[in-house]
Amino acid sequence: MAWHTMPPQEIEKHSFEIISREMGTVQLPAGQRAVLQRVIHTTADFDYVQNLYFSENAVQAGLEALRCGANIVTDTKMAAAGINKRALARFGGTVHCFIADADVAAAAQKRGFTRAAVSMEKACAFSPDTPLLFAIGNAPTALLRLEELIRVGRVKPRLIIGVPVGFVNVVESKEIIKGAGCPCIIATGRKGGSTVAAAICNALLYEANQGRKI
Amino acid sequence: MAWHTMPPQEIEKHSFEIISREMGTVQLPAGQRAVLQRVIHTTADFDYVQNLYFSENAVQAGLEALRCGANIVTDTKMAAAGINKRALARFGGTVHCFIADADVAAAAQKRGFTRAAVSMEKACAFSPDTPLLFAIGNAPTALLRLEELIRVGRVKPRLIIGVPVGFVNVVESKEIIKGAGCPCIIATGRKGGSTVAAAICNALLYEANQGRKI
Repeated sequence: MAWHTMPPQEIEKHSFEIISREMGTVQLPAGQRAVLQRVIHTTADFDYVQNLYFSENAVQAGLEALRCGANIVTDTKMAAAGINKRALARFGGTVHCFIADADVAAAAQKRGFTRAAVSMEKACAFSPDTPLLFAIGNAPTALLRLEELIRVGRVKPRLIIGVPVGFVNVVESKEIIKGAGCPCIIATGRKGGSTVAAAICNALLYEANQGRKI
Repeated sequence: MAWHTMPPQEIEKHSFEIISREMGTVQLPAGQRAVLQRVIHTTADFDYVQNLYFSENAVQAGLEALRCGANIVTDTKMAAAGINKRALARFGGTVHCFIADADVAAAAQKRGFTRAAVSMEKACAFSPDTPLLFAIGNAPTALLRLEELIRVGRVKPRLIIGVPVGFVNVVESKEIIKGAGCPCIIATGRKGGSTVAAAICNALLYEANQGRKI
């Protein structure tokens, strides 16, 4: 069958050619374009051409942080599983997700918060000397709590990737993060998800490595 | 802020009310409706109302297999991370993903196949006495190899969840699986993904547990 004869690396190359062709004449800086194309590669959803919002210099801020060994904090095990850990480790960074930690679950239950919100508090207390990127693909309450923590000075993310998906608080949480005073990449509207969060991290990692996968 | 006052379990309940309202008058058997709603909950994408295909009795076949302790094989660590392992373990099943195994990588490199395709071969050889569900959210080559393995009698999946996402071989691989003679749930077209694969598994697990999360 024909599929046996296509080398795996050719499949991705051909996919990006199709994406580039179907995107048409979108004018974007190279870094933003690389992020957008990888999100479409992950979702097959061209709505992101309209939906994906970059604050000024967001890509640049993300690349600088990654090259300085930033760690990435996610709100789900799925997003953590999807990030290319080898690429991140090359720069000295690691991925962290506190959502399933027993202390997070206990505090969430006690306070009637989501575990995602409490996991953001734990992230702020974790290795305060290492720059942090936040990649939030699921829980709007993670973004909402993160914005509060930024406001009271408990954390200063180098970049927030804010792409929760869903129907309750999702649109609002993303709009709030746009005003949090940190560089951000946001999937405006209801769409997003853990795969989108991981795709944006990986696009930045490959850009930080001069366009090469690792 | 208002979000602090909404208990976490209420967020999901309210989300499903919104989905149900916006889906309108779609007529589906209850099991299919539960699967479709959880996919929309995961993607915020109502295209799945049109895209999601169920072969005859696919949901029933999946529920019976899960209740008999079926294992689930996925093509990505992300999908494996997203499946509710506690719910699956309640029936005796476990999740398996062979994509990152050293022997799979070595065989793939030697033969010029994708690791996803080779990982399907390993799944067929694994615990042949346990019923298997396949949940494929990323690699069309996994589906294509799986169909060949079914054809030569090396495996007889109780259910195939065929929801790879992308641009090369994706649409075709899903159409081929529809004709493989196994119960299947397919995201027709380009869309899908690891989160969709996990969402369908979880919807079936909650249905198998009489509508309750575990």
